[in-house]
Amino acid sequence: MGIEELDNEVETPLLHSASDSLRIRRSAPLTTSQLAIVGSSLCPIESLDYELIENDFFKQDWRSRGQAHIVRYVILKWTLCFLVGALAGAVGFFNNLAVENIAGVKFVVTSNMMLAGKYERAFLVFASTNFVLLMFASVVTTYISPAAAGSGIPEVMAYLNGVDAPDIFSLKTFVVKVVGCIAAVSSSLHVGKAGPMIHTSACIASILGQGGSRKYKLTCKWLRCFKNDRDRRDLVTCGAGAGVAAAFRAPVGGVLFALECVSSWWRSALLWRAFFTTAVVVVVLRALIDVCNSGKCGLFGKGGLIMFDVTSADVTYHLEDLPPVIVLGIIGGILGSSYNFLLDKVLRIYNLINEKGHVCKLFLAASVSIFTSCCLFGMPWLANCKPCPAESSEACPSIGRSGNFKKFQCPPDQYNDLASLFFNTNDDTIRNLYSAGTDNAFQKSSVILFLITSYFLGIISYGLAVPSGLFVPVILTGATYGRLVGMLMGSHSALNHGLFAVLGSASLLGGSMRMTVSVCVVLLELTNNLLLLPLVMLVLLISKTVADAFNANMYDLLVKLKGLPYLKPHAEPYMRQLTVADVVRGPLQIFNGVEKVSNIVHVLKTTGHHGFPVVDEPPFSNSPVLFGLILRANLLVLLRKKEFLHACTLASVDASRHFSADDFAKRGSCKHENIEGIELTAEEMDMYIDLHPFTNTSPYTVVETMSLAKAGILFREVGLRHLLVVPKSSSTTPVVGILTRHDFMPELILGLHPVLLHSRWKKTRFGKSNLIQLFCDLCRFQK
Amino acid sequence: MGIEELDNEVETPLLHSASDSLRIRRSAPLTTSQLAIVGSSLCPIESLDYELIENDFFKQDWRSRGQAHIVRYVILKWTLCFLVGALAGAVGFFNNLAVENIAGVKFVVTSNMMLAGKYERAFLVFASTNFVLLMFASVVTTYISPAAAGSGIPEVMAYLNGVDAPDIFSLKTFVVKVVGCIAAVSSSLHVGKAGPMIHTSACIASILGQGGSRKYKLTCKWLRCFKNDRDRRDLVTCGAGAGVAAAFRAPVGGVLFALECVSSWWRSALLWRAFFTTAVVVVVLRALIDVCNSGKCGLFGKGGLIMFDVTSADVTYHLEDLPPVIVLGIIGGILGSSYNFLLDKVLRIYNLINEKGHVCKLFLAASVSIFTSCCLFGMPWLANCKPCPAESSEACPSIGRSGNFKKFQCPPDQYNDLASLFFNTNDDTIRNLYSAGTDNAFQKSSVILFLITSYFLGIISYGLAVPSGLFVPVILTGATYGRLVGMLMGSHSALNHGLFAVLGSASLLGGSMRMTVSVCVVLLELTNNLLLLPLVMLVLLISKTVADAFNANMYDLLVKLKGLPYLKPHAEPYMRQLTVADVVRGPLQIFNGVEKVSNIVHVLKTTGHHGFPVVDEPPFSNSPVLFGLILRANLLVLLRKKEFLHACTLASVDASRHFSADDFAKRGSCKHENIEGIELTAEEMDMYIDLHPFTNTSPYTVVETMSLAKAGILFREVGLRHLLVVPKSSSTTPVVGILTRHDFMPELILGLHPVLLHSRWKKTRFGKSNLIQLFCDLCRFQK
Repeated sequence: MGIEELDNEVETPLLHSASDSLRIRRSAPLTTSQLAIVGSSLCPIESLDYELIENDFFKQDWRSRGQAHIVRYVILKWTLCFLVGALAGAVGFFNNLAVENIAGVKFVVTSNMMLAGKYERAFLVFASTNFVLLMFASVVTTYISPAAAGSGIPEVMAYLNGVDAPDIFSLKTFVVKVVGCIAAVSSSLHVGKAGPMIHTSACIASILGQGGSRKYKLTCKWLRCFKNDRDRRDLVTCGAGAGVAAAFRAPVGGVLFALECVSSWWRSALLWRAFFTTAVVVVVLRALIDVCNSGKCGLFGKGGLIMFDVTSADVTYHLEDLPPVIVLGIIGGILGSSYNFLLDKVLRIYNLINEKGHVCKLFLAASVSIFTSCCLFGMPWLANCKPCPAESSEACPSIGRSGNFKKFQCPPDQYNDLASLFFNTNDDTIRNLYSAGTDNAFQKSSVILFLITSYFLGIISYGLAVPSGLFVPVILTGATYGRLVGMLMGSHSALNHGLFAVLGSASLLGGSMRMTVSVCVVLLELTNNLLLLPLVMLVLLISKTVADAFNANMYDLLVKLKGLPYLKPHAEPYMRQLTVADVVRGPLQIFNGVEKVSNIVHVLKTTGHHGFPVVDEPPFSNSPVLFGLILRANLLVLLRKKEFLHACTLASVDASRHFSADDFAKRGSCKHENIEGIELTAEEMDMYIDLHPFTNTSPYTVVETMSLAKAGILFREVGLRHLLVVPKSSSTTPVVGILTRHDFMPELILGLHPVLLHSRWKKTRFGKSNLIQLFCDLCRFQK
Repeated sequence: MGIEELDNEVETPLLHSASDSLRIRRSAPLTTSQLAIVGSSLCPIESLDYELIENDFFKQDWRSRGQAHIVRYVILKWTLCFLVGALAGAVGFFNNLAVENIAGVKFVVTSNMMLAGKYERAFLVFASTNFVLLMFASVVTTYISPAAAGSGIPEVMAYLNGVDAPDIFSLKTFVVKVVGCIAAVSSSLHVGKAGPMIHTSACIASILGQGGSRKYKLTCKWLRCFKNDRDRRDLVTCGAGAGVAAAFRAPVGGVLFALECVSSWWRSALLWRAFFTTAVVVVVLRALIDVCNSGKCGLFGKGGLIMFDVTSADVTYHLEDLPPVIVLGIIGGILGSSYNFLLDKVLRIYNLINEKGHVCKLFLAASVSIFTSCCLFGMPWLANCKPCPAESSEACPSIGRSGNFKKFQCPPDQYNDLASLFFNTNDDTIRNLYSAGTDNAFQKSSVILFLITSYFLGIISYGLAVPSGLFVPVILTGATYGRLVGMLMGSHSALNHGLFAVLGSASLLGGSMRMTVSVCVVLLELTNNLLLLPLVMLVLLISKTVADAFNANMYDLLVKLKGLPYLKPHAEPYMRQLTVADVVRGPLQIFNGVEKVSNIVHVLKTTGHHGFPVVDEPPFSNSPVLFGLILRANLLVLLRKKEFLHACTLASVDASRHFSADDFAKRGSCKHENIEGIELTAEEMDMYIDLHPFTNTSPYTVVETMSLAKAGILFREVGLRHLLVVPKSSSTTPVVGILTRHDFMPELILGLHPVLLHSRWKKTRFGKSNLIQLFCDLCRFQK
């Protein structure tokens, strides 16, 4: 289809001219260069092989597998899931324990100093502890594992989408993530531990899935049973679910989060395995918390920290409660989308600073830490002291670190409501906001002040070079916002303010993360109150709809900022106007069924491609016949083994005698063999390899006239790395190109066909008109 | 690959011979008939078009769509979801209301007679009421809409898998299903209303999705906006979720049920829409129940009927409670799989009887009704009367229809515990079993007797020609079984017996239905107690694993019994040994780009195919070129419109001027145009049609050497109806066959290649050795 026609106005009937140009192209010979860059990797990011490689060698291997092998495989699969769950639960618990103890000691020491009237010294201790903790987190992240910065959810999403970004699942990253996250959260920085916990659990799954770490000698033969990316993908999906389950003690929510937000492919069987993993997490957590309940865990174990138990026995609401809830949802959606907008802007600025070098990164982190400390310690002074309520079940004022009624600078029998919000761990603040029966505990001005501060603190804290999650800041800000709405409603609504806080959290989560079902279930499990369900649903639906009208969800923004080639589930509208022939580029490297070693070495050295079509030509067949696709990784194994042929004939050797399936086992994430490591003599270079037994004889193909949109659907749904393009009619070559992930990236397509940028297909997508954008987004969402 | 080799033993290295035969085949000319029966429909069941048809005409139509069109589409989509939710909620409520009132009056009348000592008359009234109700249900089902029999879940599953079975979503079926279900459940037959409710809601969705019913004049222009099967599929998926939500008041469970069990394709966007639909259901139900709580609904409205509220404030359990729970899960799995086994056998016998004619169907229903009445009324006489507990919050003995303590034949101040189980609606019995603090209410002998009776009553009641669900009988039997385990544990377990009953339900559901996540969430929402979660999960995991070792899940069995061509998500192992060339059969019907009318008419009249490849041959191209695929439905529209060409040239007419997109709108379920209805003159038969603008230029293709397993994955994942097979090398035809759903059915493949039946691929699948079967099932489950 002529690209030029795309600019025509709506009113012009395009069909006629379009089918004219089609006709010309149909009858024209193959003149344009319809050749592909095979597996063109412009960045160190590689794709994963989720496709089943069906070659003769593997088929033979499958046939030779006995029942014992299958049994071992199944048992290992479940054992690994169990291990992932258990370790994720243990790490999650350890995380909480460490944070509660470190932050707890900090708050207790500071509070005691304030009780003695030493306010300046209290501030110094508070600020310097925060500073040291954050600098520690920032230093380990910056110098040991930069991949551990941020929440890690975009990286996990990209991995499950088929992108193997360097170093994201290494043992180093895992350790830095755990340690850094504890330090960062303990430093009272406005970040959460949920996101890092998801990344940590995915790390555990990946490290176990690739058979431990050979480098650190943490491996054994039994662990190394997952030889391909598919099995590892499934395990990492379970790991991501386990992370959410560990962070929120929400097993069903964890599974749904993995399903709705993190994973790109999902099967029913996986649902069950993920469920099993999250169940293990919850049981482990429960057991560990039971241990702590006996008081052996220092400052941990008093409040059931992970869970915000706000079961108020009877939640009743009626039709007249709906209008405030709807308004809350609408404003929540606007706040959420502006949260995303501001976060995007701040991250772009931070990226500029961070690129300047390690010192700049540390300096940025230091500034934010000092600013945060000033806010947290300084703001409460703005509030008036309030007299303690007469009949309170809690101690008032409380001196330690928890409780609704912080004494701060107040005289006896009075409390500082702003300090209860600011001068607390985020978890405790959320619990305070969610608690029922405290409708009069906070002043309006305090809540407004805290809302504004926490909104912006959350945005400026995320982009630092420390492990940091976004869930808790969003939940916290949302809870404050909800509480405020509840206070503004006053006696007009029968709902209590704790409930409003929960709904506020839902609205901000819906507005920024845009996950509906999983957020809803997580919130329900978090608050342990099923009767909230319809209200939470309503709020989520409204806030997501409103926010979708303005911008994309937070994780899409983050993935885009990271530059990860993420395949979206839907095709862009303009892709329908292109055929695959419009994007495949040359030159295409093809191997013969029996290929000379020197040729293979030359091609592997001069190109960065990861897949090569294998074509049988005379004398092996009458005419050129597409035999299949061979992967670079497999070619490297063949070259290393040096089982070469002396002449260009079909192999007389038995492949299964010289190779074992383990030779072709996929190595761990980002550990790639390269051609430079293989030494070959001149004699060997003149020999031949029979590629037939090692070639995937069932590669997926599309005809070159296929629309790019439909090829994209195939690519994404089946989870491909390479998609062969075959000619529409008899031609000299049986394959005209290869499509990879990069060929479906909008940036590349628009680069090849700049005219699309100005076509109405593009304009309506990225147009400035908000109304059009709204409808397009809505419409895209439907597709 | 030679099929003959498959029999070789494991030890023989197959690679060598296999690659030999491969080589022969590679060089051999195309001698075997590799031609397909296009869309071969051996039964009246048709496939649905879930694939996006991208032809020039539709592309033109998409281009001409303005923003207004998109906005209308989006609004309608959500409005329809809202309507489906609201109607499903209303119908579900109406269902419950009717059942509770009819069954309630029956029980009150009978109880009053028994109070007066007229036991014979009471039995007569009870049995004859049941008989009349069941005969009514059976008569309407048999004579008006046989498709309404059974639960309807297999049909909905098949529809969402792409199978359009006749009459399953018609208005007639809907009405019969609602009325018949009310009558059947009220007749004290051991069937549930959940399954029919899912079918009913899917019916509502389908009827609204295809634009109401033209036949019954229930339509308007706005309703008819969903012109293709994809949109309708999405709506029916939401409908199925709404059904579960309405049946159990479980919105999250409904979405998960639709996701895990019913639907074959799922997208994130759908998750949100399904969630919205179930939220609407719950709000509607809540509003209607609120209305009833004021006492305006007769016997309804006392007990919050749909929900089994068993919130016992503090559920605590410890490590020592795990062993009984594990045992409960294991036995539950065995009971569940034998439930499936027996159900399968009984259904096969019933099918033989039902095939004999309508009278036999009615006779069978009548026998079961009388037998059930005898059981329900007769069994309680076997129990001893127990004295009422001294400090009971409930009335004891209770005279009416509800309550734990039925008087039945007992003297004053005593109650019959067996009557509390038997002589009640199923819902009330479940609530009795789930209730906490009633550990001493039942005798062991009573529970054992009820367990055995309800187990077999459930099995013999399902296959009758009435709308009947399986959920409630399974939940009820499971609850009884769990209660029994609790009683046997006695003081060895601290868990209360109501909790054991819930776990028992979970174990039997896991053992028979094999859904884990959705059953778990439904149970949690049903019992409104999140703390149960880990225990329920554990039981489900164990019972499903145990049951999977024995047989397939209940719905797979039912789908198989119904003979619906259901595409499984995984490929059978032996499919890997076949290429697509091994299953395509001839002769293949191909059309030219510009085809003579008489040819088209002839082909359409003589074949039953639904898709035809369109190939451009000289003079329109230099060599034969595959242009695309055209559907029978589109050809019929072209023939009916009679916009023919006088000569074999490319069209000079503008397609978009003579046709509108509405002409090509897919008609409702099972309303197919046929060629016989189109009258053409001899002159018209000599004319030509330019098929180019109406041909899908982007059909999915596979090369003939593709393995059948991987082609199957493509077929299923992308949701295809036709899959074109292209040659591996230049040949005279650019397409060698078409694969349809039938080509992936094991029955057809094994019929074509009977040698596979004896190969070890097949043997291990259907072998008799239980241990091997166990591991294979486990293994299959992983794939």
